Amino acid sequence: MGNESKEFKLELERAKGTRDFPPEEMIVRQQVLDTLRTSFELFGFNPLETPIFERFDVLASKYAGGAEILKETFKMKDQGNRDLGLRYDLTVPASRFVGMNPSLKMPFKRYQMGPVFRDGPIKLGRYREFWQCDVDTFGSKNMLADAECVMLAQSVFRKLNLDVVVEVSNRKVLDGILTYCEIPEEKRVDVITAIDKLKKVNIKDVEKELQEKGIPSELIDRLFRVLKTTATNEEKIAKLKQLFPPGPACEGLKEMQDLLSSLDDQSNVVFELGLARGLAYYTGTVFEGFLRNSKEDDVKSSLCGGGRYDKMVGNFLQSNKEVPAVGLSFGIEPITEQMKINKQRSGDGRVQKSVAQVFIIPIQTVPFCLQVAGILRKEGINTEIDLMDRAITKNLNYANVLNIPFVLIAGTEEVQKNRLKLKNMKSGEEQMLTLAEVVKVLQS
Amino acid sequence: MGNESKEFKLELERAKGTRDFPPEEMIVRQQVLDTLRTSFELFGFNPLETPIFERFDVLASKYAGGAEILKETFKMKDQGNRDLGLRYDLTVPASRFVGMNPSLKMPFKRYQMGPVFRDGPIKLGRYREFWQCDVDTFGSKNMLADAECVMLAQSVFRKLNLDVVVEVSNRKVLDGILTYCEIPEEKRVDVITAIDKLKKVNIKDVEKELQEKGIPSELIDRLFRVLKTTATNEEKIAKLKQLFPPGPACEGLKEMQDLLSSLDDQSNVVFELGLARGLAYYTGTVFEGFLRNSKEDDVKSSLCGGGRYDKMVGNFLQSNKEVPAVGLSFGIEPITEQMKINKQRSGDGRVQKSVAQVFIIPIQTVPFCLQVAGILRKEGINTEIDLMDRAITKNLNYANVLNIPFVLIAGTEEVQKNRLKLKNMKSGEEQMLTLAEVVKVLQS
Repeated sequence: MGNESKEFKLELERAKGTRDFPPEEMIVRQQVLDTLRTSFELFGFNPLETPIFERFDVLASKYAGGAEILKETFKMKDQGNRDLGLRYDLTVPASRFVGMNPSLKMPFKRYQMGPVFRDGPIKLGRYREFWQCDVDTFGSKNMLADAECVMLAQSVFRKLNLDVVVEVSNRKVLDGILTYCEIPEEKRVDVITAIDKLKKVNIKDVEKELQEKGIPSELIDRLFRVLKTTATNEEKIAKLKQLFPPGPACEGLKEMQDLLSSLDDQSNVVFELGLARGLAYYTGTVFEGFLRNSKEDDVKSSLCGGGRYDKMVGNFLQSNKEVPAVGLSFGIEPITEQMKINKQRSGDGRVQKSVAQVFIIPIQTVPFCLQVAGILRKEGINTEIDLMDRAITKNLNYANVLNIPFVLIAGTEEVQKNRLKLKNMKSGEEQMLTLAEVVKVLQS
Repeated sequence: MGNESKEFKLELERAKGTRDFPPEEMIVRQQVLDTLRTSFELFGFNPLETPIFERFDVLASKYAGGAEILKETFKMKDQGNRDLGLRYDLTVPASRFVGMNPSLKMPFKRYQMGPVFRDGPIKLGRYREFWQCDVDTFGSKNMLADAECVMLAQSVFRKLNLDVVVEVSNRKVLDGILTYCEIPEEKRVDVITAIDKLKKVNIKDVEKELQEKGIPSELIDRLFRVLKTTATNEEKIAKLKQLFPPGPACEGLKEMQDLLSSLDDQSNVVFELGLARGLAYYTGTVFEGFLRNSKEDDVKSSLCGGGRYDKMVGNFLQSNKEVPAVGLSFGIEPITEQMKINKQRSGDGRVQKSVAQVFIIPIQTVPFCLQVAGILRKEGINTEIDLMDRAITKNLNYANVLNIPFVLIAGTEEVQKNRLKLKNMKSGEEQMLTLAEVVKVLQS
């Protein structure tokens, strides 16, 4: 291959910050997506789909993503010179949808799974196109709606066999704590940003950051004493009740109590006072899910997160009506990553590169094998048949590389005797079987 | 609502040419998508996912979409000022993927379902974002691969209960016919464009168009005599064999014969000599599926289409290796449209607006009902519970509007007796049942 021919050929690249998902990745991803969808529907969330791009003014509206996210929005124009942008999340489009459909019956419970886009710097694990899988309940202020998000997370992670702790808190409670600790209004964003890191960095580093932001040591101590309380969820609520004067902070505590009392299983739910979550639009409950006791090479980032945002949707309405909302977003990327780690750890290192359950190798028996393929497919068995007219060893190698579990070999002699050779590619075992027997083995 | 408040509010709009799919649309769409995916996997096609946007030079490469499609490509830049475009189909990205992964095992059989984008004029039924659902087999020249596309279409439409005829032809055969009819090279694009319309417009109009393009009447007559042959597939092949000298046209006939002989059911497969399909990149087999005997208000456009394109992928390779390819694309939009028409026609006019199978109404029994909801969900029953603390009539109305088939009512008295009231919302029938009995009814 000379340079000459290269000159006329395209240098093949993907757009920066994007990925292809080949079959071996997609097979795991789809398992996760299917589990999410099944669970979403079990809880009565309904599918909604909105476009990949929106009018730029919708994406830029107040209470939406904020200035930081707008800087990272991919912008484009259509032929009519209209300003458009690729969606950076699924919450703003869903809010726009609710705003445009005032006759929707409430509560409106929807889910959506799909790609979102941020034109940001490419760091390890950050991409310009990534998926979000969201559920949101619009129209209910009832803490049952918040509790359903927690129960949904419990259901999802139980099915995926991931040991996840759901941390919950409430913005009003956090505000109450900051007031109790006499953190002035103008310092609160800094303080929230700092304590949001308590999970990831050393407490000393957070302390240092707070000192640098000009928070007196005495107040830092008081703050840490409250945040670091080790107690049951109920005890935390009782303790905080004594610190707060009547008002929004007590309301927040009441909400937390209502939420927790709706759960029949609190064994993996922690009222985590330090849980802040950056986004400005949250107004009450916030949640975030992490692996329990994660090991060295486990995924450290959150596997789900969300909260209540009662002010955002109203912004999209002609009337000034408030539309309360609460939602939860699942991170398909870290979840899939952890699934792969667990699979590896369980000693099952084989990567499934094909959905096919059986690969048929005809040896001068193509017409017969086509009929067999047709029958297997009617029986619901994913079946691939040689399309290359290759010799048996090459075909076996192909099935082996793709990790297809069974190979079915049909020679003229076997076919005359109404038998087929079924080879288990993992054990190497070979059996001469009738087609009916083959179906039985493959279905089991 | 005065004008004043309006001034401060956003005028809510979607981007032009895009759509939202509310639950009632998505529920039908997902049924179709699930059927497609199941069938794709039965035939051993594997999932691949590529990004929503590509480098512009990839989209603009020779043999890809062509000038017309590039004019309609949404263009944007990233922060690094790189030229990008939204994908206008799934074939070019798949070809790019194959080109970037020279170690892929052949054949590489993949499917992909997702949105593509064209910034064209908005006519009735044309959108700027729409879905494609494609299968493609890369690396095999064997007509079995082409036959699999036809068998897949048969399988899909059988499952969807749509009576579809798959028309097949071959570009080499069409070229042979045009040569036989002495259509000069420089007129062939015009002639193909005209005969592509034979399905949609009157034969007289096609004749007129051909006359206007300067084709002599005598040749038009000869062309129509060949194209309008009414005969079985086998008879058509036999007749054409007599017209063609040895060469590519005969090769095309041989391919057609091989393809047809691989099918065990030709009852809905027609060798349609006039089938051209506009795209320049097709090199052999072409297919297109239409409703058989479509009625007045049925969908007229094709429900699937595709063909063989042996030259395109090589364009994406550093080596000059040819990678043969054949694929089929399903039109989720016309398929969904026809499903809705058939449902209406069958007298079942109810539109399912929710995936929920049952809606629970607690009457001062919330904690008990939460447990019931948990049990139903564990049994795999999609369950919604009142989140609004509403009176029973309002809740019944909600369930009715959403067409949720069952409502479960739990009053304090009933709960004490360990009974629940299950109401069938279609028949109006009410039953007092134990929870175990409720599960049985809902699962059946």
